[in-house]
Amino acid sequence: MSNPSILILPGDGIGPEVMAQVTRIIDWFGEKRDLKFDVETDLVGGAAYDKHGVPLADETMARALEVDAVLLGAVGGPKYDDLDFSVKPERGLLRLRKEMDLFSNLRPAQCFDALADFSSLKKEVVSGLDIMIVRELTSGVYFGEPRGIHKEGNERVGINTQRYTESEIARVARSAFELARKRNNKVCSMEKANVMESGILWRDVVTEIHEAEYPDVELSHMYADNGAMQLVRAPKQFDVIVTDNLFGDVLSDCAAMLTGSLGMLPSASLGAPAENGRPKALYEPVHGSAPDITGQGKANPIACILSFAMALRYSFDQGDEATRLEKAVEKVLADGVRTADLMGPEGGTPVSTTEMGDVILAAL
Amino acid sequence: MSNPSILILPGDGIGPEVMAQVTRIIDWFGEKRDLKFDVETDLVGGAAYDKHGVPLADETMARALEVDAVLLGAVGGPKYDDLDFSVKPERGLLRLRKEMDLFSNLRPAQCFDALADFSSLKKEVVSGLDIMIVRELTSGVYFGEPRGIHKEGNERVGINTQRYTESEIARVARSAFELARKRNNKVCSMEKANVMESGILWRDVVTEIHEAEYPDVELSHMYADNGAMQLVRAPKQFDVIVTDNLFGDVLSDCAAMLTGSLGMLPSASLGAPAENGRPKALYEPVHGSAPDITGQGKANPIACILSFAMALRYSFDQGDEATRLEKAVEKVLADGVRTADLMGPEGGTPVSTTEMGDVILAAL
Ligand SMILES: CC(C)[C@H](C(=O)O)[C@@H](O)C(=O)O
Ligand SMILES: CC(C)[C@H](C(=O)O)[C@@H](O)C(=O)O
Repeated sequence: MSNPSILILPGDGIGPEVMAQVTRIIDWFGEKRDLKFDVETDLVGGAAYDKHGVPLADETMARALEVDAVLLGAVGGPKYDDLDFSVKPERGLLRLRKEMDLFSNLRPAQCFDALADFSSLKKEVVSGLDIMIVRELTSGVYFGEPRGIHKEGNERVGINTQRYTESEIARVARSAFELARKRNNKVCSMEKANVMESGILWRDVVTEIHEAEYPDVELSHMYADNGAMQLVRAPKQFDVIVTDNLFGDVLSDCAAMLTGSLGMLPSASLGAPAENGRPKALYEPVHGSAPDITGQGKANPIACILSFAMALRYSFDQGDEATRLEKAVEKVLADGVRTADLMGPEGGTPVSTTEMGDVILAAL
Repeated sequence: MSNPSILILPGDGIGPEVMAQVTRIIDWFGEKRDLKFDVETDLVGGAAYDKHGVPLADETMARALEVDAVLLGAVGGPKYDDLDFSVKPERGLLRLRKEMDLFSNLRPAQCFDALADFSSLKKEVVSGLDIMIVRELTSGVYFGEPRGIHKEGNERVGINTQRYTESEIARVARSAFELARKRNNKVCSMEKANVMESGILWRDVVTEIHEAEYPDVELSHMYADNGAMQLVRAPKQFDVIVTDNLFGDVLSDCAAMLTGSLGMLPSASLGAPAENGRPKALYEPVHGSAPDITGQGKANPIACILSFAMALRYSFDQGDEATRLEKAVEKVLADGVRTADLMGPEGGTPVSTTEMGDVILAAL
């Protein structure tokens, strides 16, 4: 039997720097834990545009559909700001999400004990925080048609369409309920059913799936504006939050920032399980390409490393090995090892991107 | 010359309770400062539905278009949750906004010194915070067509349309730039131009208006997800934020919660100046109808009172009197007078809704 396969797409900005540390960790699992992967690397985003004139080559797309998991670094940067909409770096990422049908985007917002002081929120509000945002990722206003800019009389008009079908809502709802069962058994669904019909359908379908298939899970509904408020006021009231693509984009970033350590947060984007039981999957850090610190050895590789831990858990059924990796990261943080972004008033041992990789490997 | 006219729409839940205190304050200005208003009162939201079967009667709508300013309490409540979309309490408010053409919604997020401890954020992150969110209020996904829920095959599909014209964006941008000139001369515009064409048009038009008419104001652009993050991380970096209807809904609630005192925050919704120089205007607290505390004398009337202060400033050109009222509120807070929602660990003098009205009148 061949090894499970991974396609690595480092992308732009700090993407390649943080991904280099992940590669070392993948190698470690091969050597020390006999968990071998077939790894290949390719281009996405601005890096792909520079070579191919498109932010994702067709061959790369084809490989992404064949491998067992994709690991992505980050896309975008000021160099590409003036590109036409259709070839912007982001379109590469959006094409992967859409064609791999990765409808369920898991974004944990977890506050690491060693970093609780780091949040702009009071320690008691965020310490021990552990929420999971499940964001619908392949539909809604990101992909709805009609869209574009056209002329009416002598005015430009910009249009996008928020569109959700029943089955699109149902499948992401199921994925949230399944996750909740493995956590604290609570789901809060967020929309604007008070002003949007697509929000009414969202609320209705989530409620129907709940009643028919997951009556044991506690379900609540909240308007998305109130959701943003409650995340800031008392985030620990939540366990799993399920919401649409656009609200999920904004609310998950808000939740991520609560933890005070954006450089720490991984994400998994999952499709439906394939014949081999493995869902199509893409793992990426929540942070962006950080052009301001690119190439300086300052980037924090932990979010990208924890994204690989999520891959171990969700794609390769290696929950114990994922926990091993997560524990190594926790230990290093508890020991006071800090990349620049984690350097707070209480100090710590400053390290570069590569040095952070070193100590995590040592902790493993 | 007749007195300026005000239409009071207390609405649902705690709306009537907080508005009762505003009425006393309006009377005070008439008696003590010779600022007399012609005040009339009518129904909106669930209260209007109960009487008329619609959340805003046509006669009320007509009066709203005639008076110089509308003061609104709050709409909605669990009693009306199962009403048809078209007659929900919120539709009354949305109809007012749309037919009065109140395109510019000003939502200050201000942290009161006496209440800085009250925020879930660290004191140094929020103390002295003073941002103004300008939210487009009459277009975007709230009003775009087509919309609704229909069947495709045997599936339901929910649709809403995000739609912005050039002139809709231009007028709200102007209103943000004008405000910035009276403040710290900085505007940050937020959208998702990286994934939505309507966001590209938004960014382009804001940039054009800036270059042509307000080159003296500092303008920056931010993706709305990053905006949510930055609001949580370091809100004091902002002066004026301008954004669309839906992002404005979520981001302004997020910003409001940063201050820790939702019961304190007013808002103004303004249209274009009419012949008499006065814009069409509606003033309302940012908080909702709070059904959980309705009728218990617990509601904090300050947000509604400060909304009237905004009316004095923006509709009646009485900036000094507005400041007088705001100072009275600040004094009362500094003295430790607290409605239940403001009662923190450091204690204070607990008061009811009416007693809060009493002390503010005394401070005036
Ligand atoms: C880069 C961008 C297209 C993307 C999004 O809007 O989904 C990002 O913000 C994210 O949340 O993954
Ligand atoms: C009540 C509701 C219709 C409204 C909105 O979504 O605009 C409210 O949330 C607000 O922000 O004023």
